[in-house]
Amino acid sequence: MIIVADNLHVMQPAFARAIERMDPEPVRKMVRECIGCGAQALDINPGPLPKRPEERMIFLVETIRAMTDLPLLLDTVNAEAMAAGLKACRGRRIINGFSLEPNKLDGILPLARHYDTDIIGYLLHSNSQVPIDAAEMMEVAVDLFGAYTDAGLDPGRLIIDPVVAPLSWQDGARHNRAVLNVIGTLPDLLGVPVRTIAGISNLASGPVPAARKIELECTFLPMLAAAGLDMALTNVRHIATVETAKTCNGLLGEQIYAWAAQAPVPGGQGHHRA
Amino acid sequence: MIIVADNLHVMQPAFARAIERMDPEPVRKMVRECIGCGAQALDINPGPLPKRPEERMIFLVETIRAMTDLPLLLDTVNAEAMAAGLKACRGRRIINGFSLEPNKLDGILPLARHYDTDIIGYLLHSNSQVPIDAAEMMEVAVDLFGAYTDAGLDPGRLIIDPVVAPLSWQDGARHNRAVLNVIGTLPDLLGVPVRTIAGISNLASGPVPAARKIELECTFLPMLAAAGLDMALTNVRHIATVETAKTCNGLLGEQIYAWAAQAPVPGGQGHHRA
Repeated sequence: MIIVADNLHVMQPAFARAIERMDPEPVRKMVRECIGCGAQALDINPGPLPKRPEERMIFLVETIRAMTDLPLLLDTVNAEAMAAGLKACRGRRIINGFSLEPNKLDGILPLARHYDTDIIGYLLHSNSQVPIDAAEMMEVAVDLFGAYTDAGLDPGRLIIDPVVAPLSWQDGARHNRAVLNVIGTLPDLLGVPVRTIAGISNLASGPVPAARKIELECTFLPMLAAAGLDMALTNVRHIATVETAKTCNGLLGEQIYAWAAQAPVPGGQGHHRA
Repeated sequence: MIIVADNLHVMQPAFARAIERMDPEPVRKMVRECIGCGAQALDINPGPLPKRPEERMIFLVETIRAMTDLPLLLDTVNAEAMAAGLKACRGRRIINGFSLEPNKLDGILPLARHYDTDIIGYLLHSNSQVPIDAAEMMEVAVDLFGAYTDAGLDPGRLIIDPVVAPLSWQDGARHNRAVLNVIGTLPDLLGVPVRTIAGISNLASGPVPAARKIELECTFLPMLAAAGLDMALTNVRHIATVETAKTCNGLLGEQIYAWAAQAPVPGGQGHHRA
C-alpha cells in the first residue's frame, strides 16, 4: 500500500493562494513537508480552475516535478487543465479521475489513452450519486470497467476508488463496510487484479476532534489494507496514520520482524505500477 | 467483538504469588484494574497447577465471581482444575480450551458437554504443532469441528482460536495473514457461523519496545475485526489497543456517528453468546 498525500488541496488556504498568485514558494514548502512526513505520491487538487486552468496546472506540475520524482496524481474535473498538466508532467503521473458521469467519460477518460497514463475510476452513478450498498457498488464497478475497456484501455492501468463515506452521513459506517467488501471482491468480480485507492480523510470529515479523527483513520486503514487496498490517500501530517500505513505494509508484506534490529521499514504488496 | 483481558496470567508474578498463597486481595486488585480498563470478559490462566489444582482453581473462580458477572474463561490444561472451576463458577463461563491434542480431546472436550458451556478450540495439530499455512489451518479446523460435533456438541457453542503467531517467528507475519484469511473463511468452510477468538498479545511477544507492541496490536486488531473476529484476548492495560477495539466495533457495528454527541460506546456484532 502506498501513501498518497492529499494535502495539496484547494481547500487549504495557503495552497489556494499560491495557485491564485502562481507563487511557487508556498507550494514547495507544502511539498517538502509532505515528503518529510512519508508521502510516496502526491495528489494535486487545485479545484475546478475556472480561470486560466492550463497555465495554473502547468505551474503546479512544473513547480512540484522540479522538486521530486514521486508519482503525481492530477486531480481536477477541468479537462483542459488535466490535459495541460499531463502534457507538462515528466515521469509518473496518474489521472484522478473519471467516473460514469458523462462529462468524465467524455472529457477525462480519453486523456488516459492519449497520454498513456494510469487513471483512477470512482464508483459513482452517472448522476454523481454514491451507490448505497455493496451490490450497487459492484454493479457500478462492472459498468465502469466496461466503459474503461470499451475505450480500448489496459485493465492493468485502472485504479478503482470505491469512495469512502464520511461517518457523519446517515449510513456512512454501513457504506464503508460495503467498501471493505467491494475492495476484497473486485478482482473476482472483474476477473483481473485491478488496483484500488481510497481517501482516508473522508472518513472523519467535518467537525471531528483531531485525536478522534486520527483514531478513526488508524482503525479503518488496517481494515482497508487487509481487504487489499493498494493506495491510501491521506493527510500525511497525521503522523500516526502514516505510521499505521507503514505497519500495515509490514504485517501484510514480506517484512521480516527482528526486534533486535531497526524498526521495520515500509513494505508494500509488490504489484504497484504507479 | 468483545474484549477479553489476558492479564490474569500465571506469568504475572503478582498473580502467581496470589495463587500460591491463595491470597484473594492481589487477585481482586487485578480484576478491578481489568474492569476499569474496559474488559468485557476475563481469561483466568493459573498455568498447569501441579499442586492442589482443584482448590486453587476454585479459589480463583470464587474470588473473581464474587466481584463481577463478566464471562470467565477458564484457561488451564489441568482437567481436574478445569472441572472443579466449572463446577464452582456461577454464571457465564467458557472452557479455554481444547485442540486435536489427545489429552485435550480426552480430558477437556467432554467437560463442555458435562458442564453445558461454550468452549474454545485451538487450530493446532494433534502433535501440538501450529499449522503452517491457510490450507493446513483449514484442514485442522475441519478435523477439530468434526471431533467437536462427533462429541454431540452444539456448533453454536464452539469458539475457534486460529492461533496468532509472534511476529518474531520465522514466517510469523505470513502465518498471521493466513489467520485473517481463515477467520473470514470459517463460516463457509464449516457451514455454520462459528465464533472466533484471537490472542492479540501473542503478536509482539518477547523483547519488543512497548510503544511498538501497542502499534502492532492497534494495526492488526482492526484487520482481525474486519475479518469477523468475535473476541479479542488482549492486555487491557494497553489502553490504545482497547480503544481501537471499541472503534472497530463502532465502524463494523451499527454505531451511529454524531460528532456533537458523546464518544461512541462499544458496539458488537450481535451474535455473541458468551
